[in-house]
Amino acid sequence: MAQKASANGLLFRPHFKTHQSVETARWYKDEGIHTITVSSVTMANVFAGDGWNDITIAFPVNIRELDEISSIAGRIELNVLFDMPAQVEGALRRLGNPTGFFVKIDTGYHRAGVAPDDYNTIDRILNLTTGSPLIFKGFLTHSGNTYQARNREEILEIHTRSGRLLNHLKQHYLNRYPDIINSAGDTPSCSLADDFAGMDEIRPGNFVYYDLMQWMLGTCLFDEIAAAVICPVVSVYPERNEGLIYGGAVHLSKEALTAHNGKKIFGLVVPFTKGSWGNAEGDDFLLSVSQEHGVFRMESAWSKSLQPGDLVAVIPVHSCLAADLLKYNPAVFSR
Amino acid sequence: MAQKASANGLLFRPHFKTHQSVETARWYKDEGIHTITVSSVTMANVFAGDGWNDITIAFPVNIRELDEISSIAGRIELNVLFDMPAQVEGALRRLGNPTGFFVKIDTGYHRAGVAPDDYNTIDRILNLTTGSPLIFKGFLTHSGNTYQARNREEILEIHTRSGRLLNHLKQHYLNRYPDIINSAGDTPSCSLADDFAGMDEIRPGNFVYYDLMQWMLGTCLFDEIAAAVICPVVSVYPERNEGLIYGGAVHLSKEALTAHNGKKIFGLVVPFTKGSWGNAEGDDFLLSVSQEHGVFRMESAWSKSLQPGDLVAVIPVHSCLAADLLKYNPAVFSR
Repeated sequence: MAQKASANGLLFRPHFKTHQSVETARWYKDEGIHTITVSSVTMANVFAGDGWNDITIAFPVNIRELDEISSIAGRIELNVLFDMPAQVEGALRRLGNPTGFFVKIDTGYHRAGVAPDDYNTIDRILNLTTGSPLIFKGFLTHSGNTYQARNREEILEIHTRSGRLLNHLKQHYLNRYPDIINSAGDTPSCSLADDFAGMDEIRPGNFVYYDLMQWMLGTCLFDEIAAAVICPVVSVYPERNEGLIYGGAVHLSKEALTAHNGKKIFGLVVPFTKGSWGNAEGDDFLLSVSQEHGVFRMESAWSKSLQPGDLVAVIPVHSCLAADLLKYNPAVFSR
Repeated sequence: MAQKASANGLLFRPHFKTHQSVETARWYKDEGIHTITVSSVTMANVFAGDGWNDITIAFPVNIRELDEISSIAGRIELNVLFDMPAQVEGALRRLGNPTGFFVKIDTGYHRAGVAPDDYNTIDRILNLTTGSPLIFKGFLTHSGNTYQARNREEILEIHTRSGRLLNHLKQHYLNRYPDIINSAGDTPSCSLADDFAGMDEIRPGNFVYYDLMQWMLGTCLFDEIAAAVICPVVSVYPERNEGLIYGGAVHLSKEALTAHNGKKIFGLVVPFTKGSWGNAEGDDFLLSVSQEHGVFRMESAWSKSLQPGDLVAVIPVHSCLAADLLKYNPAVFSR
């Protein structure tokens, strides 16, 4: 991904919310990356404390956290997001240290952000910050709607549309702000696109591990998936071709996918031997998860041979949530 | 719930997986309760370490954890579950200390357990343990299928059927084992039932907090819900009647419900003032959650008046998962 950014003349500011790990973060440092994205003030503190000194918090400013934000902005290069003038007014009362900001734009996901044709709101945000310690960096979007796309073409359509909308804004404000950075780039788009027109910076995060969702979207190869949850088989029920693992919603989350067979699934069970996991042997999907129980389908000859005490690898539907769930609980890795 | 158990002559062994909290556990101690249920060896260790000395681990034995199980069984009264002879064979090789066990029966949920008419498997489990440190306590079921019931009548039908199936087994084995305990009791059943025929012990857990799912199932009053996640409003989007909170899948889980209006929802947003939360003002449902973002519907006059910096309470769909997610991260409570 770093090479792709470089080849396309893009700034690369990977999102660290997927791993939230200072160890994984160092893989990026080894690639010469110094600019990162996080999704909370807590995460910004963690990574600033581990030597990362150029961070964008990609969540609109929570005005209850301005003291912490100000403190971080005093120690490192920090960028925040605004999508409402009220957030800016709050920030102007509390932020003393120079702080970069992006205007968050909603290019179609409809989670957060200003509508791309709402010049009135954008102007109010920009006018409020003139002459203040808040420094306008550019426009930022997250096209999370690519995760709901049905195929590669739809992902690339969303990506192209986001670039066009951001570019339109940039052209509108370029005279007043000649250094505008347009920031975009979810993992599906960044994995598939070859053209990043309208964008100056990309911020994909999930690609560091990928997962079952990405594989099924067609944005990665199975061999590129770098996260699995190793679980013990606790029981098997040959009469219904199902098995029970200790591995449930508190390890994998309740994120679900619809598999090619039309079933709602919570993961894919694959062999785990000698410290690494293998390819799928068949449709050995996790069919249900409750708090700590996971029930999987024994579809392949391999999974039908599993016995209590065997270890299997579960490819999670969403590696960001699985990594978040397991990061606080190293004990689960010891069994 | 303790009074209901007592009035019906039932042993009460509440499930502690919902709260996983030594503080909440003490509320039970104040009610004179000394027998508890947990769902992992890790939890058994935590509560045994806090003075709980009669614990059932309500998960079939993971034979990779027999050393820890044996160690706990040497310190307290411990019961485990078997639903396969292979688990018993493993246990006999490793367990030195007297350990109680239940045979886990699948009365219809199809998650774990022996089929209630599979006398062959039950006999093999019982015969293997004769004369060993493994002491047969009785039959145990969890009718988690009550959570999929559409109304009270369906919940009570599932409950009655479980009692009948367990009683049938008890009568079959009573000559050989005169002290059989039949253990059952999910929160929906225990909340609604007045008749516990066929059951000697109940193990509800969720009732300690209840949640949106239970309220919508009709198993509790809104005033009986004792868990909410307090979240800051970060932004509002009046043009689409939606607001953004810092509160997502890593705080509430991705557990969803279908609300009365047919929408898939992830929580209910209600007022939070002076340290306590109020009743629902309207259908102010959480419409989507991603990792840390939550988008809610501003349906009521109250929610339409919300501004960035306001705090709201989110009633979680499933309090067990929300409590698990937040227990490791007290920092989130400080903002």
